[in-house]
Amino acid sequence: MSEAKKTNIAIIGAGPAGLGLGATLRRYGYQDFQIFEQATIGASFKQWHPATRFISPSFTTNGFGAPDLNAITPDTSPAYSLQTTYPTGAEYAAYLKMVAEEYHLPVQENCPIQSIRRNQAGFELVGPAGTVTTARFVVLGLGDFHYPDQGAIEGAKLAQHYAQIHSNQPFSSDADPQIIIGGNEAAVDLACHIVNHGGRAALYTTRTDPASTTADPSLRLSERSLERLAQIASHISVHPKKTLVKITQQADQSYQLTFDDHSQVVTRHQPLLATGFDVATSPLISPFFAKVDGHLALTDADESTTTANCFLIGPQVQHGNTRFCYIYKYRQRWAPMAETLLHRSNFAIDPEVTAWYMAQGMYPMIFSHHHHHHDHTPAADESCDHCHPTGCGC
Amino acid sequence: MSEAKKTNIAIIGAGPAGLGLGATLRRYGYQDFQIFEQATIGASFKQWHPATRFISPSFTTNGFGAPDLNAITPDTSPAYSLQTTYPTGAEYAAYLKMVAEEYHLPVQENCPIQSIRRNQAGFELVGPAGTVTTARFVVLGLGDFHYPDQGAIEGAKLAQHYAQIHSNQPFSSDADPQIIIGGNEAAVDLACHIVNHGGRAALYTTRTDPASTTADPSLRLSERSLERLAQIASHISVHPKKTLVKITQQADQSYQLTFDDHSQVVTRHQPLLATGFDVATSPLISPFFAKVDGHLALTDADESTTTANCFLIGPQVQHGNTRFCYIYKYRQRWAPMAETLLHRSNFAIDPEVTAWYMAQGMYPMIFSHHHHHHDHTPAADESCDHCHPTGCGC
Repeated sequence: MSEAKKTNIAIIGAGPAGLGLGATLRRYGYQDFQIFEQATIGASFKQWHPATRFISPSFTTNGFGAPDLNAITPDTSPAYSLQTTYPTGAEYAAYLKMVAEEYHLPVQENCPIQSIRRNQAGFELVGPAGTVTTARFVVLGLGDFHYPDQGAIEGAKLAQHYAQIHSNQPFSSDADPQIIIGGNEAAVDLACHIVNHGGRAALYTTRTDPASTTADPSLRLSERSLERLAQIASHISVHPKKTLVKITQQADQSYQLTFDDHSQVVTRHQPLLATGFDVATSPLISPFFAKVDGHLALTDADESTTTANCFLIGPQVQHGNTRFCYIYKYRQRWAPMAETLLHRSNFAIDPEVTAWYMAQGMYPMIFSHHHHHHDHTPAADESCDHCHPTGCGC
Repeated sequence: MSEAKKTNIAIIGAGPAGLGLGATLRRYGYQDFQIFEQATIGASFKQWHPATRFISPSFTTNGFGAPDLNAITPDTSPAYSLQTTYPTGAEYAAYLKMVAEEYHLPVQENCPIQSIRRNQAGFELVGPAGTVTTARFVVLGLGDFHYPDQGAIEGAKLAQHYAQIHSNQPFSSDADPQIIIGGNEAAVDLACHIVNHGGRAALYTTRTDPASTTADPSLRLSERSLERLAQIASHISVHPKKTLVKITQQADQSYQLTFDDHSQVVTRHQPLLATGFDVATSPLISPFFAKVDGHLALTDADESTTTANCFLIGPQVQHGNTRFCYIYKYRQRWAPMAETLLHRSNFAIDPEVTAWYMAQGMYPMIFSHHHHHHDHTPAADESCDHCHPTGCGC
């Protein structure tokens, strides 16, 4: 067995979360960390369907203290780098690679971590061919895309998940609608794609109608999705409050879908699941975190409540009702996390760097009494009351 | 002569700037102000061509400290209110009206101020039918749209300015391109409109090629404009570094355009000017401000350098090389201006309100040494160096 390599902080995943935290550590002047990536930088984004684009718009406003919503550092902008408002996955992966290069981030590509074990000093990470890296801190930023969530649907394997749809996959263009399970952004994206290819779509969504509004686009449809949905309205049907519980395939190869209200639908086309993602099932993550109310339990510092020095970054981060499931949300967690890691490593924290992240809106805000928030993070469920169309009345 | 009405602060103009400052004063708990509007709330926006939309995207991120780029208060969002990413002028006027109503702003519509005179106590504003309002402070927020800038073009009257184009105006759809003077957003907007109606366009632009890049979309084309330009590329021609100096009409009714390099172009179609706007020519503004390098001279508090207690708000505000010509830029000036006005009025400033504007990115940032900025405002000309695609190297 070869001698173990050592690093103080091991970051797993070279997506926006891992690279963003890495760039933040660099900004603080810190060097003793490694980023392990099982494939290549931004690999998940490269697997996006080519017709899929970002929902949150990119625009070059960093110079005025409002970083591009999809930027992972305060001084870069996908809008500027890619000259587009809604990047594709492939474009965004190119942006990530540029940031990694400019910040000289220590990314080890094609380096899948097979397992993580606790040891006395911290963690042992087992990589390709049994190579071992020891680290005092582990930060998990695996992303969601590789972990389709099929919920509690019996027979889900008979359907096809959104993430598995390939660019050249044909869809039917006959009068029979393609059934899509879901009513959020991915479902709309899929519906648009099918209609653009001459087909029809039927959305079955557990929650309320996609037309319902709250202020937070991660709890409802973004404006971009609403606009696309309006354009294809005559070619789709939407069935809200329908929770799929079972899929069976019949003798004639048709699919029978059973919903929780006992209603049934039969379709000749393979059902499509736009039911989201759940990285919590990953064997790299699940042993180290407790689960509370279906999400990974975290301290205020985004540290595991059961495994000291093990942290979570990215869209899985959730505190109470606040989900950090867009880049512009979860990037606010990096500077405080960097401070935690550096503080425990006895590395001096430069307050000017912190001030810069604060001035650029990439730091959790202290909410004033105007918002009646009870902690230092905005509560997504509350934001629908407070970020009101004309919300003076506090 | 009827008795003069009194108000402490008179705001001229009920566009985003006037209403935004008004809402900020209200947030601080201040009541003694009036907003005078010559037409109705958002009147300039109602005159936009219906095909024209915002360039800066609206997206509902206020809850996470990044207010919608086109919002005028930290707690409202055009994206949410209008359910669109790129509002039309008419839509945005509706948003402004909602904010005015929710904030109970004291707007006097259809109340054109004919003239402003200084008196011992401050200012006398003469409104319709000779009504007079006296005010200690005057804040001018007239907007640009009513003041086409035709620069130093001889015979400019022969052309038609962008702001004067009506929704039902026909454009030629023959092979002869429609000549547009300008290379910025309005020029691209016009070119797209013409091409969408089957025509062709030729852009003559003083500056460099529209494809040239800097980081600030007010100094170059926004991503949205670039994308639209790319779509119509085969139907337009772009002629950079061409400054129009003269338009003459010939005996056959054709137009002859002469540029500063002595080149000439003849066209049968009336030339279109997308040469911008300049409110500084307004008789309400020009007497009260000095001009320096072509823009209105302002103190750090956006006060006239020649007329005490007379302030400027909106897209005309400029400091050095920094132009505040988008809403997301100039809205940062309102809270500091409100503080100045309230301080001089001996009204206690609530620090929690200030903290809220700061946390929401609607307050000028203190730039750290990372950006090498020399004052408290970001310098637009510098931002192209610093907001680099991958700009770590400070």
